[in-house]
Amino acid sequence: MATTPITIAILGGGGRYWAPSVLMDLALCPQLSGEIRLHDLAPPRRTAALGRSIFAHRRSVTTFRLTATNDLRRALRGADVVVIGISPGPTACFVNDLEITARHGILHSVGDTTGPAGISRCLRTVPLLAGFGEAIGRWAPAAWVINYTNPMTIATAALYAGFPGIKAFGCCHEVYGTQRWLAQLLAAERGLRQPPRQAVRLDIAGVNHCTLALGASWQGEDLFPLLRQVVARRGFFADRTPTAVLRRRSGAFWDHDARIACDLFRRFGALGAAGDRHLAEFFPWYLAEGEAGLHRWGVVATPAAFRAGTWRPDAGVTPAPNPLDHGDILVTGPRPSGEEGVAQICALLGLGDLDTNVNLPNRGQVPDLPEGAVVETNAAFRQDRVTPLTAPFLPDALAAHLQRIAAVQQLTLAAGRTCDFDLALQAMLLDPLCHVGTDTAATMLRELLAANAAFLPGWRA
Amino acid sequence: MATTPITIAILGGGGRYWAPSVLMDLALCPQLSGEIRLHDLAPPRRTAALGRSIFAHRRSVTTFRLTATNDLRRALRGADVVVIGISPGPTACFVNDLEITARHGILHSVGDTTGPAGISRCLRTVPLLAGFGEAIGRWAPAAWVINYTNPMTIATAALYAGFPGIKAFGCCHEVYGTQRWLAQLLAAERGLRQPPRQAVRLDIAGVNHCTLALGASWQGEDLFPLLRQVVARRGFFADRTPTAVLRRRSGAFWDHDARIACDLFRRFGALGAAGDRHLAEFFPWYLAEGEAGLHRWGVVATPAAFRAGTWRPDAGVTPAPNPLDHGDILVTGPRPSGEEGVAQICALLGLGDLDTNVNLPNRGQVPDLPEGAVVETNAAFRQDRVTPLTAPFLPDALAAHLQRIAAVQQLTLAAGRTCDFDLALQAMLLDPLCHVGTDTAATMLRELLAANAAFLPGWRA
Amino acid sequence: MATTPITIAILGGGGRYWAPSVLMDLALCPQLSGEIRLHDLAPPRRTAALGRSIFAHRRSVTTFRLTATNDLRRALRGADVVVIGISPGPTACFVNDLEITARHGILHSVGDTTGPAGISRCLRTVPLLAGFGEAIGRWAPAAWVINYTNPMTIATAALYAGFPGIKAFGCCHEVYGTQRWLAQLLAAERGLRQPPRQAVRLDIAGVNHCTLALGASWQGEDLFPLLRQVVARRGFFADRTPTAVLRRRSGAFWDHDARIACDLFRRFGALGAAGDRHLAEFFPWYLAEGEAGLHRWGVVATPAAFRAGTWRPDAGVTPAPNPLDHGDILVTGPRPSGEEGVAQICALLGLGDLDTNVNLPNRGQVPDLPEGAVVETNAAFRQDRVTPLTAPFLPDALAAHLQRIAAVQQLTLAAGRTCDFDLALQAMLLDPLCHVGTDTAATMLRELLAANAAFLPGWRA
Amino acid sequence: MATTPITIAILGGGGRYWAPSVLMDLALCPQLSGEIRLHDLAPPRRTAALGRSIFAHRRSVTTFRLTATNDLRRALRGADVVVIGISPGPTACFVNDLEITARHGILHSVGDTTGPAGISRCLRTVPLLAGFGEAIGRWAPAAWVINYTNPMTIATAALYAGFPGIKAFGCCHEVYGTQRWLAQLLAAERGLRQPPRQAVRLDIAGVNHCTLALGASWQGEDLFPLLRQVVARRGFFADRTPTAVLRRRSGAFWDHDARIACDLFRRFGALGAAGDRHLAEFFPWYLAEGEAGLHRWGVVATPAAFRAGTWRPDAGVTPAPNPLDHGDILVTGPRPSGEEGVAQICALLGLGDLDTNVNLPNRGQVPDLPEGAVVETNAAFRQDRVTPLTAPFLPDALAAHLQRIAAVQQLTLAAGRTCDFDLALQAMLLDPLCHVGTDTAATMLRELLAANAAFLPGWRA
Repeated sequence: MATTPITIAILGGGGRYWAPSVLMDLALCPQLSGEIRLHDLAPPRRTAALGRSIFAHRRSVTTFRLTATNDLRRALRGADVVVIGISPGPTACFVNDLEITARHGILHSVGDTTGPAGISRCLRTVPLLAGFGEAIGRWAPAAWVINYTNPMTIATAALYAGFPGIKAFGCCHEVYGTQRWLAQLLAAERGLRQPPRQAVRLDIAGVNHCTLALGASWQGEDLFPLLRQVVARRGFFADRTPTAVLRRRSGAFWDHDARIACDLFRRFGALGAAGDRHLAEFFPWYLAEGEAGLHRWGVVATPAAFRAGTWRPDAGVTPAPNPLDHGDILVTGPRPSGEEGVAQICALLGLGDLDTNVNLPNRGQVPDLPEGAVVETNAAFRQDRVTPLTAPFLPDALAAHLQRIAAVQQLTLAAGRTCDFDLALQAMLLDPLCHVGTDTAATMLRELLAANAAFLPGWRA
Repeated sequence: MATTPITIAILGGGGRYWAPSVLMDLALCPQLSGEIRLHDLAPPRRTAALGRSIFAHRRSVTTFRLTATNDLRRALRGADVVVIGISPGPTACFVNDLEITARHGILHSVGDTTGPAGISRCLRTVPLLAGFGEAIGRWAPAAWVINYTNPMTIATAALYAGFPGIKAFGCCHEVYGTQRWLAQLLAAERGLRQPPRQAVRLDIAGVNHCTLALGASWQGEDLFPLLRQVVARRGFFADRTPTAVLRRRSGAFWDHDARIACDLFRRFGALGAAGDRHLAEFFPWYLAEGEAGLHRWGVVATPAAFRAGTWRPDAGVTPAPNPLDHGDILVTGPRPSGEEGVAQICALLGLGDLDTNVNLPNRGQVPDLPEGAVVETNAAFRQDRVTPLTAPFLPDALAAHLQRIAAVQQLTLAAGRTCDFDLALQAMLLDPLCHVGTDTAATMLRELLAANAAFLPGWRA
Repeated sequence: MATTPITIAILGGGGRYWAPSVLMDLALCPQLSGEIRLHDLAPPRRTAALGRSIFAHRRSVTTFRLTATNDLRRALRGADVVVIGISPGPTACFVNDLEITARHGILHSVGDTTGPAGISRCLRTVPLLAGFGEAIGRWAPAAWVINYTNPMTIATAALYAGFPGIKAFGCCHEVYGTQRWLAQLLAAERGLRQPPRQAVRLDIAGVNHCTLALGASWQGEDLFPLLRQVVARRGFFADRTPTAVLRRRSGAFWDHDARIACDLFRRFGALGAAGDRHLAEFFPWYLAEGEAGLHRWGVVATPAAFRAGTWRPDAGVTPAPNPLDHGDILVTGPRPSGEEGVAQICALLGLGDLDTNVNLPNRGQVPDLPEGAVVETNAAFRQDRVTPLTAPFLPDALAAHLQRIAAVQQLTLAAGRTCDFDLALQAMLLDPLCHVGTDTAATMLRELLAANAAFLPGWRA
Repeated sequence: MATTPITIAILGGGGRYWAPSVLMDLALCPQLSGEIRLHDLAPPRRTAALGRSIFAHRRSVTTFRLTATNDLRRALRGADVVVIGISPGPTACFVNDLEITARHGILHSVGDTTGPAGISRCLRTVPLLAGFGEAIGRWAPAAWVINYTNPMTIATAALYAGFPGIKAFGCCHEVYGTQRWLAQLLAAERGLRQPPRQAVRLDIAGVNHCTLALGASWQGEDLFPLLRQVVARRGFFADRTPTAVLRRRSGAFWDHDARIACDLFRRFGALGAAGDRHLAEFFPWYLAEGEAGLHRWGVVATPAAFRAGTWRPDAGVTPAPNPLDHGDILVTGPRPSGEEGVAQICALLGLGDLDTNVNLPNRGQVPDLPEGAVVETNAAFRQDRVTPLTAPFLPDALAAHLQRIAAVQQLTLAAGRTCDFDLALQAMLLDPLCHVGTDTAATMLRELLAANAAFLPGWRA
């Protein structure tokens, strides 16, 4: 079978996770070939070399020409698909976000999406992604744009702010984890072989990392009755602090048991459809009682030291693998990354339909949220079009809470676009994690802006 | 391969079009078998016999047990799927609708959906369908319900009014005609073999019979630029009266050339996605200049005499076939009806995904129309779920016009539920076809109610 | 008592009705004095002279300095209040509007507000009023702006389009007529002396000239039960053709008996709160059966010949007075015009509160209509602020109809701002009076644009 | 001048503040006379006696017949006006609310409106007020109903839930305090005599006790520029802990300096228009840093001991007067209470117009909040009607925050109507003060329900 030739630009092409993931998945996709342009602040030659090794590996089934550039125009001109997976500023900024907010008493379990640390990251992200949007509008207006950058919602919204006609969507694997967890549960409860995650269908609605499943089914069977039974069992919600402590000692910061996802299910009637560490940050309850309160759910906050690279596992403990680490590619050869970007590209090229979750500006798919806000739902990927599926209504309480989150995000986007201190402060004050006085919040914001000033063009010192 | 056994109740099982269509399609579907219960005011024994002949035909690939009943409870109890295709009252009522309105100067091209005649039909339909809804709520609450009954929008809405938890959707073939017309156009313009209608993808939004395509594509190619070229050609919108006259003489009342669909495209930017005869009734312009004004577009109004069975083609002219006539089934054996109900049943049973158009209460899929109004969009049919796809925004002018139509329909539904003369009159007055004085409208409504009183329980004489 | 000194600019200062009305009312207001600047295309020296005579009259209680100019900047600089009452183009344009639409079969009872003739007038009005808005934004941004220009809704909307920060409102006397009619009815039914119109309180909502009263009271008594009795009397809605014929012969085009207002009350539950001649144009029913159909309600269409100045009353018939004619001012001296502009100015200056009806962009006062659309409601005039009172909800059918009217107006405004033929045609097609084919409508629009081309800058021929 | 005779029912007629306030104001109103029926759980004979003394006092200018009853029907039948001012359950319940929530770490500055304590109070209030609503619907459906009961929003909403046709509004004096504070500021800044509070006009929007002023003026002058100057002065927001400590020692729990009101002005652009002690509870920032954090603003939390009657001022400190204490009426005779209920009654009887603030279901007056939610705005009191004025739009951040508050209130109302634990818990979790884990919140709610079980009919233990 002949392959379909395409040109793919990867912005953030020097990154350690997204670029290698895409390269591996492309290497394993027999339907595509063509050209890949890796773009970054400096031409990402090492990733290009890595890519060549991947395509040269015996398990690869196709090949692509690879170039590395720091010229955005050259990367974009003629591109059919643009993949964006960047970090907004160096790791030091992220560490600042975590440490400054912690100093003012605010704990984040992740800190890259929401909460004051997440908002700080958003302020750095907005001009970068809006800039990409403008550049795409100029040089590749017809290209499909897949965004992997976090904070996903704001990053995607900034692309549209930069170029309203952009064909961009955001793509996140958190929902897959919930599918997998339910597949596991089903296997355990029914004594089955674990079905593939895709066989578990979720009716989702929300914003990225705060996605909620309003229904779940497997082979047409509603899984919510089963889930209701399971969470009602004695002990299901027992204190998981010992587990959390072990996780913390080995650095298993990504691990969780969906107990926060299920607490939302118990209290509000919708299952959290993201990792607990992300969900915890969107609600004021799970981090309100400090790190101990978070450990109670079996969840561990990723320490600033880990981001800074100075964190070490406890002596004698086997360190947990970092799921974002592709360091062994050259040894093992390409393997499926678990991401869906390449499958989405195939669907957009007419090489097979795909239904999956996606982040897009709301045009009615989440009727509980304002028009234009970037929301996460299921969508139909077909030849040259992505159409969101209409989500069910949220329970009233969650609809109200998500409206609040969407409002914080819209204030954050506006603050980032206009470099407006007052709007940024308002976003922080309305954020669920920000349980401090207004003076404290203002001080904290000022400190964040000062610490990361080099990556905040347009903000007054 | 083993078949999946199901029980299907067909309400309106004695009808001449829908019941035979479903029986033929089932006979050609190798995946299903089981039981079919035909229900009607009198047990439809002739249709049951017809069904047995169909399943006995050599082209049939499966078989079903067939029973005929006039006991709704027996028809519904244990049914997995309910198919509804009835006529609201005998043909004489339809003839009354057409003749009384015509006497007051109002011409309908069809008269079964909208306009004063359509509203009159709605008033008869609402109690019947709401009654079916209640019965399904009592005896088959988990069944999937496929409604074919016209007026589709009101009929589907009445099912939900009768049982808000119903799993019902309305199903109409008008959109297929638009797909077919575009496929034909494409073949002619490009010198291709005509692709199957399903290959032409339409982004639709609207209410049934007034559905609009906001985008059209084939193999990922946007077809609107081509369409714009075609309709801009000299002569495309030339007077088609001669064609209409021929159609009228032979009784080709269903035939049209999509010139009204294309006039909407030219004037408003969205292609009408229903037959011209239906579209004409939803806008005040195409029938405003009388039958001659309609002929100008090549369209013919179906005469009341045809409904009454007294119409005859002109002497010497070959009569046009009636597309709704299945009189020859026993001779030809089962053939695909062109309807999608059986494919939808298969998808709902998990036997293969299907994306097609559907009528469902609005929960955001048409953001321009009020929540709860029954709207037509694309939808994803998956195992035990139908999820509408979010439609694009309508052009402002069409959004406003469809809001008006939805308001007329909501007033009509309310009038039918409460037997309220004032609400029915308000619905008529707001209807696009009703260009008469308020006294005339009130007289006309009174005459309609009187003429069809036997089929309007609860209305005062 | 010392007077409050103010500077008032009157745009359209050479006009025959509004400028003299304002001058008379100012002459009778002991609280104000200062400067009046009359502005028009040519310096309106005759009106200035007339004004001086008015202020010199013995019944005048104050005086103003008067200047005449055609320099907009000089008129506006330093103005505290701007009064706008212009005609969009010469009378010949109005005559064109009426004659061209009549030629295509469309009858208007007035033709200055809505219907194809009204839309044509709107297209001329928009650039003029938007231009005034811009000029006010530049030279008198803090001034209060009273708009009397018709079409009121579009004219006021155009002021806001020109300068979003403008402190403008539209002011119309039609509601006063309904108050007066009810006061008369009350007096007749109860054997009372007729109370002043202000004693009849109306709960109004709508758009100008299509205002609806959802409640009416006098001394705390709900007047709707009385009105219900009255309209239910035998003969109340009897054919009033003989009255209409007399009115036509004498030129009493303004006279009516509120029978259309009451037909709306009977059919929809809300009383029309404008003259019948205006109401008739907003609904497709009263003009659908031609001039005879209109006469049935006792209403007469103002003939194009009257606008052209060539109309003459029947021989031997006493000509009806034109209520808009102030020709006798110099003889009779100043008398209250019946308009409220000067009372509103006083209230805005803190010289006494005033509650009256007003046209303002919707910010919630008519929850049934879209935000931003100019709507008519009651409002509280207080020192330096005008606050709309929240209107009751409209009956569903009228809410839907007014949404349609608002949509037509928004399309018209957009067409006028962008000189877009398609938008203007869409506005016409959606207008209630436009019961013609799309080709006819397009031809008519083209003819209107051509006939008035001199007053439609920016439109292609 | 003859007085207008009316019959007034006072529910909560045995209360210590509202009933005496109304009696005093009536005694000083020369326009009214008639009958007052005091209703309470036991016939409030002492208040009736107090009332007789008041009307007998030489400063009284009118008189009323007074009766005391515990028969709701006898109190309501024939009443023209119903005044409601009750406490939902005995003081012990209020003390429970404060103590139980404090035990779980949640501080309330008042605890009668919002926060977990306020929600607990709401759950007791809803059935009482809904019951009053039903009784009024049965026995006095045309009466005007003035509600003084707190929590105002929920109490008023419960009246409408009990009888949707009720003519009820809620009436609160907190806005007057803001007017007074601005009048004082104006006097101090300009060296004027302090104008009466009514001379300061506020454009308000919000929900009771979380009302926001979006504009303020005096004699047509916008006061916001002045306010901006004042709050920008060095020291304006200085730490007011010493003042708070003094207030605490003397029991001056009601005193404040509007520093929280002004912090909202500084941070969000709208001035808080309620006492700081109430405002503090609606935002998560002012109570987040504990009692010390509150003292920083000069505000003191009213201790549970004060509600329990066991609180005593510090030795040697002059106790602050309780503004709600009318203990000295018999000595001093009637004096104006500062409340507006009697003025509102006069306006509704047609004895003079009144513009003031009011709590009513939203029908558009606060376009940022959902239809039907009880909101606080200005309103026009006229003969037999109260019409809300349309409020300006809120700044985006405050709109979002008030939407959250309205959502909490709607969940609380629903919980109270249905005795639903999950809904009550959701309301608590979404409340701005509830910064605890979900388990803690559930435990706290269970304890609150158990402690006050005697006053929570229909809730499971």
